[in-house]
Amino acid sequence: MRILGIDCGTERTGFGVIDSDGRSHRLVTAGVIRTKPVYALEHRLVQIAKELRAVMSQYVPQVVSIEQVFHSVNAKSALKLAHVRGVALLVAAEAGMPVSEYSPLEVKISVVGYGRAEKHQVEMMVQSLLGIDRQFHSYDATDALAVAICHGARMNYLLAAGAEH
Amino acid sequence: MRILGIDCGTERTGFGVIDSDGRSHRLVTAGVIRTKPVYALEHRLVQIAKELRAVMSQYVPQVVSIEQVFHSVNAKSALKLAHVRGVALLVAAEAGMPVSEYSPLEVKISVVGYGRAEKHQVEMMVQSLLGIDRQFHSYDATDALAVAICHGARMNYLLAAGAEH
Repeated sequence: MRILGIDCGTERTGFGVIDSDGRSHRLVTAGVIRTKPVYALEHRLVQIAKELRAVMSQYVPQVVSIEQVFHSVNAKSALKLAHVRGVALLVAAEAGMPVSEYSPLEVKISVVGYGRAEKHQVEMMVQSLLGIDRQFHSYDATDALAVAICHGARMNYLLAAGAEH
Repeated sequence: MRILGIDCGTERTGFGVIDSDGRSHRLVTAGVIRTKPVYALEHRLVQIAKELRAVMSQYVPQVVSIEQVFHSVNAKSALKLAHVRGVALLVAAEAGMPVSEYSPLEVKISVVGYGRAEKHQVEMMVQSLLGIDRQFHSYDATDALAVAICHGARMNYLLAAGAEH
């Protein structure tokens, strides 16, 4: 199954595409959409939508995996991020792709094994799980790959649970 | 100048189109986009985007006026609303329309004359300013018209300020 993970942000939106059979995951592509802070939010949203559509049309994922957003850390940043997230959800749904959402805790537990993992630990585990040693020079790309892997692993769990019945 | 005001919400998104020369305002159309709570957010966003695009394409506004969002009242609702707002901003910018943003305080002061006006007072003043007695049966439509009128009035103020120089 081909999964597109998206890590939303107004300045940097990470994306990562993997092929996953639930147990093993293979990197297809990953990158970061960078928008300029001098641009008005609506123009940054247009750029993010355009680049996400390009990724979807080039790599044809079957499902989009995206982190939930919470208001805990920084309310103002969370509100901005929710604008980008709305655009990512729209673009996915308009492309006919189902969307799965995971909490940051679920992603970290799924990828690293515990919920309070640091970003560099997520990066290390993403590289290990994908069998790559490439440095992405950005946690946005590895965070996007992590949420994609989380969905792949979840599928494996659901398939295994289904097989028991 | 033809102005589209948008009042974002996940369940009900109001829209109102007016023609304004800054002093007087005329109603062109207004309504509410209602989405079903049973639908996933991404599908509600698709519906909102589709209907907003239809309004823009039918009534060809020159500018979009929209309220800012704050995290003060209810953080969870504000986050949901920000998803819709991101989609509204995207749709406007993709249609090549400039976007003006106003705080709820600016809208109320502009339309009613003071910042702590209640929704029914906003509705009354919107009807009075547009010279209509139509009941919209929804504050979402009148709130959208209010933010459109706010932009019209602001243009008048800017024009007047410009004329003094």
